[in-house]
Amino acid sequence: MKNVLGDLIDLLEGGGAVALARVVEVSGAAPREPGAAMLVTADSAVIGSLSGGCVEAAVIETARDVLATGLCVNERFGVDDGIAPGLTCGGEIEVVTERVGTDKLPLLQRLRALIEAGEPVGLVGTLSGVPDWALVRPGESAPWSQIDGTIASLVRAGRSAVAGADRCEPDQSARPRVFVQAFGAPPRMILAGANAFVRALSHTGTQLGYRVTVVDAREVFATAAQFPHAHEVVVDWPHRYLRAEVAAGRVDGRTVVCVLTHDPKFDVPMLAAALTTASVAFVGALGSRRTHTERVARLREEGVTDDQLRRLHSPLGLDLNARTPEETAISIAAQIIAETSGGSGRALSDTEGPIHR
Amino acid sequence: MKNVLGDLIDLLEGGGAVALARVVEVSGAAPREPGAAMLVTADSAVIGSLSGGCVEAAVIETARDVLATGLCVNERFGVDDGIAPGLTCGGEIEVVTERVGTDKLPLLQRLRALIEAGEPVGLVGTLSGVPDWALVRPGESAPWSQIDGTIASLVRAGRSAVAGADRCEPDQSARPRVFVQAFGAPPRMILAGANAFVRALSHTGTQLGYRVTVVDAREVFATAAQFPHAHEVVVDWPHRYLRAEVAAGRVDGRTVVCVLTHDPKFDVPMLAAALTTASVAFVGALGSRRTHTERVARLREEGVTDDQLRRLHSPLGLDLNARTPEETAISIAAQIIAETSGGSGRALSDTEGPIHR
Repeated sequence: MKNVLGDLIDLLEGGGAVALARVVEVSGAAPREPGAAMLVTADSAVIGSLSGGCVEAAVIETARDVLATGLCVNERFGVDDGIAPGLTCGGEIEVVTERVGTDKLPLLQRLRALIEAGEPVGLVGTLSGVPDWALVRPGESAPWSQIDGTIASLVRAGRSAVAGADRCEPDQSARPRVFVQAFGAPPRMILAGANAFVRALSHTGTQLGYRVTVVDAREVFATAAQFPHAHEVVVDWPHRYLRAEVAAGRVDGRTVVCVLTHDPKFDVPMLAAALTTASVAFVGALGSRRTHTERVARLREEGVTDDQLRRLHSPLGLDLNARTPEETAISIAAQIIAETSGGSGRALSDTEGPIHR
Repeated sequence: MKNVLGDLIDLLEGGGAVALARVVEVSGAAPREPGAAMLVTADSAVIGSLSGGCVEAAVIETARDVLATGLCVNERFGVDDGIAPGLTCGGEIEVVTERVGTDKLPLLQRLRALIEAGEPVGLVGTLSGVPDWALVRPGESAPWSQIDGTIASLVRAGRSAVAGADRCEPDQSARPRVFVQAFGAPPRMILAGANAFVRALSHTGTQLGYRVTVVDAREVFATAAQFPHAHEVVVDWPHRYLRAEVAAGRVDGRTVVCVLTHDPKFDVPMLAAALTTASVAFVGALGSRRTHTERVARLREEGVTDDQLRRLHSPLGLDLNARTPEETAISIAAQIIAETSGGSGRALSDTEGPIHR
């Protein structure tokens, strides 16, 4: 939607209502991501796109009704019912079309200012009748108390997705189905080491919404082909790379750093760099208990303080008795979620109190 | 390798040594899975294939040396060094070629008999010098004590992969680099419900080596396009499907059943069916604590006993304060690994004793 935001504001400032159609869910080989947006004006001018082809023609028809009634319309395309327009790729998309009036201008102008300032923010809207909209920034609450946490997770992760309304809860108004359109960069996961464990963790990290960087000084191993799920693979000494990223302002309080090199030559300076960077959300290092003990001694020699060492998750991961790289990736991802969200790692069936806090 | 096993046995019974070349690791868009195998005889007859093209020509050359020396050779293809034969797909594969002599006949005949009997089994071999081979069945130990657990995980999961030797351990002989070639069906993960949580869990389950089935009675939601990572999507009442699979002998002591329907009409009969099936490895149900309490009451009404109810993991997952479908999938996968492998879910940095048990 970012690419049509300026046009939407311009059109509203010109005085008329505009129909905004957005992809809110996709599955299979769908051509666009959630959040892809198209504007349709009262005189049927079209800005942006949803998927190409007959889906857009159908949505332009829908937009006329939406502009007339003010009620949003929800359509699924690609579900093979033999009647509705389909997608040739085998995927399915859900499109919601709604009328945006001039009353939304102040909110949209604030949204644009936040995006321009580089602040992560979510535009959250309900998906039935006359939609309610709210802007949510990390750390803020959404007006729908029971889905606050989910919305916050998505905004923090920079991920656009549907939330709410798929549980059997007593008070449906507290968890309506909403679309969270997230703006701002996703959080980073920086993985030191080029091996099968990093390969598995880069895949799991990507699924969780992280932008994953793999860094290793050995150019034979640190190749894009070895890490098909990483967003970038960097050949450099991990600590030198991390220091440069910190200096460039590309590391923030959501950044996760995991060191899986199995080599003190690389992991000690990398951990020293990560632990002395105040803003990092999570620092972990894989290894045996003996490796851990030796590593802590070396880190102390490097001048890392006890307070800084307390931030180190080592040996990395939850105790799942994980064996394979894929199982180990789950144990690490589970610890990162628990640590950044306040979970305990115990079985929910053995604990009491709310499941979502 | 299964497709060349009969030929390999025939050739050995004929008296001569045979070169066996196998893909042991792949990355990126590699054309074959680990375990793809090719045989080369002393007179350069070739059976099976590795990738097509120039890789095979190079491996046939290698096979001549291997038959002459008896020492295995390890080669990587697709690493762009400007000299060696490459893969056009951008992937990388590692191929190990070794000589198989008539001394291996009894082991290979036993392997064939186990495969024909439908028993899961792994052929494990070291990857340097003159390789050592061993057959490993679930529950048995491998001769390399420090990688026993990893080998057992792979055999149980029906996954072929490299294990060992990538940690800095004092006794390398106890954890040599080996290739585990697994035979037998992978374990099953049966997921009831067609929603975003099942979509995320089907992806994570596939990564962990499960063969994932999604089952839901609602044909609008239970479509292959909605679950691109599931191996099959079944439109049926979940309990009816599970009962039929049990009756057909397609459920075993490795099968995981998770119920995420959010609808008592579907989940109570499904859980009753799963909990009264003695052999299932893990049964879990997603939901709030109130849903859990109500569900347990209904299950008692259906005649499920206290002993059977103790097998139910509900509310499902570890307490990570997981929010999104992807985070929830990690919390469930982590619980499945911990439960089937004997882990506690506590942070490894807070526990003592061995990391792998």
